[in-house]
Amino acid sequence: MSPPTAVGNGITVHGVTDTETFTLPSPLTVAGVIARRAKSAPLKAGIAAATSSDQFKSKTPWKPLAKRWDHRLSAESKARKPSALKNAAKFLANPGMISLGGGLPSSDYFPFHQMDIKVPAIGKFTEKETAESGETMTIGKHDATEGKSPFDLAIALNYGQGTGSAQLLRWITEHTEILHDPPYQDWQCIVSVGSTSSLEIVFRMFLERGDYLLTEEFAFSSAVETALPMGVKMAPVKLDEEGLIPEDLDTILSCWDEKAQGARKPFLLYIVPSGQNPTGATQGTERRKAVYTVAQKHDLIIIEDEPYYFLQMDPYKGPGASPVPPPSTHDEFLQALVPSFVKLDVDGRVVRLDSFSKVLAPGSRVGWAVLSQQLAERMVRHNEVSVQNPAGFAQIILFKLLDEQWGHGGYLDWLIHIRTEYTSRRNVLLDACHKYLPESIVSWAPPAAGMFLWLHIDGSKHPEFGKRSLHSIEQEIFQTAVENKVLISPGSWFSADRNVEINQLFFRATFAAAQADAMAEAIKRFGAAIAQVFKL
Amino acid sequence: MSPPTAVGNGITVHGVTDTETFTLPSPLTVAGVIARRAKSAPLKAGIAAATSSDQFKSKTPWKPLAKRWDHRLSAESKARKPSALKNAAKFLANPGMISLGGGLPSSDYFPFHQMDIKVPAIGKFTEKETAESGETMTIGKHDATEGKSPFDLAIALNYGQGTGSAQLLRWITEHTEILHDPPYQDWQCIVSVGSTSSLEIVFRMFLERGDYLLTEEFAFSSAVETALPMGVKMAPVKLDEEGLIPEDLDTILSCWDEKAQGARKPFLLYIVPSGQNPTGATQGTERRKAVYTVAQKHDLIIIEDEPYYFLQMDPYKGPGASPVPPPSTHDEFLQALVPSFVKLDVDGRVVRLDSFSKVLAPGSRVGWAVLSQQLAERMVRHNEVSVQNPAGFAQIILFKLLDEQWGHGGYLDWLIHIRTEYTSRRNVLLDACHKYLPESIVSWAPPAAGMFLWLHIDGSKHPEFGKRSLHSIEQEIFQTAVENKVLISPGSWFSADRNVEINQLFFRATFAAAQADAMAEAIKRFGAAIAQVFKL
Repeated sequence: MSPPTAVGNGITVHGVTDTETFTLPSPLTVAGVIARRAKSAPLKAGIAAATSSDQFKSKTPWKPLAKRWDHRLSAESKARKPSALKNAAKFLANPGMISLGGGLPSSDYFPFHQMDIKVPAIGKFTEKETAESGETMTIGKHDATEGKSPFDLAIALNYGQGTGSAQLLRWITEHTEILHDPPYQDWQCIVSVGSTSSLEIVFRMFLERGDYLLTEEFAFSSAVETALPMGVKMAPVKLDEEGLIPEDLDTILSCWDEKAQGARKPFLLYIVPSGQNPTGATQGTERRKAVYTVAQKHDLIIIEDEPYYFLQMDPYKGPGASPVPPPSTHDEFLQALVPSFVKLDVDGRVVRLDSFSKVLAPGSRVGWAVLSQQLAERMVRHNEVSVQNPAGFAQIILFKLLDEQWGHGGYLDWLIHIRTEYTSRRNVLLDACHKYLPESIVSWAPPAAGMFLWLHIDGSKHPEFGKRSLHSIEQEIFQTAVENKVLISPGSWFSADRNVEINQLFFRATFAAAQADAMAEAIKRFGAAIAQVFKL
Repeated sequence: MSPPTAVGNGITVHGVTDTETFTLPSPLTVAGVIARRAKSAPLKAGIAAATSSDQFKSKTPWKPLAKRWDHRLSAESKARKPSALKNAAKFLANPGMISLGGGLPSSDYFPFHQMDIKVPAIGKFTEKETAESGETMTIGKHDATEGKSPFDLAIALNYGQGTGSAQLLRWITEHTEILHDPPYQDWQCIVSVGSTSSLEIVFRMFLERGDYLLTEEFAFSSAVETALPMGVKMAPVKLDEEGLIPEDLDTILSCWDEKAQGARKPFLLYIVPSGQNPTGATQGTERRKAVYTVAQKHDLIIIEDEPYYFLQMDPYKGPGASPVPPPSTHDEFLQALVPSFVKLDVDGRVVRLDSFSKVLAPGSRVGWAVLSQQLAERMVRHNEVSVQNPAGFAQIILFKLLDEQWGHGGYLDWLIHIRTEYTSRRNVLLDACHKYLPESIVSWAPPAAGMFLWLHIDGSKHPEFGKRSLHSIEQEIFQTAVENKVLISPGSWFSADRNVEINQLFFRATFAAAQADAMAEAIKRFGAAIAQVFKL
């Protein structure tokens, strides 16, 4: 598979008529954030302060507003009402008001006085460099009161809002504008407790029991396992090396027969556009536009789940080739990224799920959603009566690192570092595949993003092909691999529709976890398992 | 209201026959945990290690097993299946296995090298003392590999299990056994991302659209707001000064008419037994036993939501009385606690929700559930495809504080400190009520636990009583209070059934948040508002 290319941002500005005289400002940049902040008053946001991305976004009155989605919301989501208690918090803005209202504990009783956290200095990102030259971030209990920082333990460790804290939301909103600059006006970011949680919430915002969910034919298994118990069925869309095929999506929807299917026409599409799990496929710019056009035609909501967005890589040049150097500037890095769906989203029909899990640490349990004002408000209502908001420890540590320690520029440097590391891991895995896998039986497309390599196994070469099910051959390969001490995931685990007999054999390998030499050894073992099973 | 008394633990051991020769060991104590740990091998639990409370509990083969609840689980909960990917993790226990399976990132790319956290030394718990004599806990990235601790950042910041981490689960399981020692065998603890989230999950484990939920007539509003959008209706049970009235619960259930109600007989009871929100009521031992007996009669599941369990207090002796001294030993403290429902739970029909929010910090977003093996397994399946587990930052910080820094004994000392502080706050509020509220109109029972005082207002003394709805009088009081710069919550906000016209006037005041002098001033302002509204 060729790596997808990002052709400019390809976005036309909508909603500007000849008679309007807006001077469209340049898109927000890292330097632009610094300049904007220098002109603004310091952020003041106390315990459980109400907030939204509107406090932190550029004003863009020339952009259209998002479409309304009342006809798409589930009965559950439509029934959510604001909490009377949370609503009352607005009275606390009155000067001199004393609250006997909410049961927020006093920070006097939080037994955490100060946290010092050693993190990498910008540009010295490896573990070894951090041990030697890491810098210490200090977080005090009353830093905000003492004027040292807008965020402190007294605020972070109390109750919060379903939007996440203003302090972290500001950074996330700016980051989103720098990266995606959605082409509609009323987009919002909501801090989440990770994309796994957001996905459950988004499914419940739209789906009723009996509905179908549109998704890739091989899909992130956890997403499928989230939807199935809700009584939701899968409508799998075919894939090629650039991911979801828009023509197949259009065919499924155009030919949908409500009576035959026993369900209304599906309208929710779940996709992982970059470094798809499990296939590793990345949709290029034109592919994304084509998918978006089908979504417009059939009035779909698109969930773009993008944990691997920043793990986009340079092309693999083959074993022994000298590696492509990483981007040398922030601009070069940003320009090389395939535009996200939210960047193409003139209608506000995309719910983008972003995550720190793959680029900082899964244990932060922090991510965020980008979505229209109307949908964001529904999500906040759901958060309030479920996860509430991410752990204060996680929010303040991320704020301290991303906002005060590194800033937007330092974070881009970190992402370039991570991307380079994963590129090098991918290359080690692919080199090992070239060396150890029988290419008469195993084939693959070098992934252009993510953590996964999707290995196609030619089942027809199996001595008992035709006499046994492909599923039993898959099982045999898996078991033989385990006996050879390598754990690798059978493709059938990722079938969106588990009731359909598989007609092709795949295995998913990750280059995220094992060290370089162990990875090569693991592929050698897998090659040996294939040779055993296929009696080579 | 008199404070409830704890009469021993009142538990009969079930399941021991004359022919069995078990020597029943003494219940687990703080010293017992220390002795047990000294005899055990050090805990080894790496990244996403599978775990359960069974690793950490006393063996109690003489106790009965929990009843099965297949007939109570929702269609959604019954449909949950273990994840193929998570299941495969069991192969990783094979020595020499290399994983190309799960997409767990390498800790090389977690930019957090070390955390130093200053916390109170045992017995020197105030903010001032902590600033002066606090101790520093150090958490390294590779402490486990280096043999310094069973938990480190490399483990905590990676993906985890739906049970929570083994390290924190061990402490929580031991704590639960010391406190509650459930009288059935197969109980489990599951670490949660806080009780608000667990409650949503538990509702979805049992309830279908159209079902009724049994709850207190004045109920925690967030619980009601969680259930309503699921299409669940409220079946409110009457309250007195000791909380839920078991006879009324029995009557509702005995008289339930499925046809008239258009719903099956309810079987899920949600209660806050200690320091109930909003009424402040605490159920005594005999009351709890009576409620449990009704639950057995009608085969109910009880959700006991207990954020305020450790905020049980000595009786209020009236304004100016010298305060009752706090418990002087751990035993005295533990003996003074009303037994929990889970301590009475011979059938395994209780789901107990515990929380660190009110005793350590809400921003930890960590709590836990105590429930039967069968129900725990269903909850873990749900966690895996929603919240996953609490933030690793929160889990490791709590582990470090509770397990390594304070230990079980130090934590009990902390709880005694917190209890003493809240008792003193309660007394300040009650003193102010005696001083500033017109007792001809406002009456109250001194709360024996929690954070809330429930003020009854005699609406019949209002000049326009009978001519206006009580609701409009409540609104007038609320608005007048806000104009007088005090925020206090109207009782109607907590009506379980919001469609019923209120027939009594209440306001809820918290003594959690404001400082002592501000609290007294706030009550003075509320008294003035009452005087205005009632034209005194």
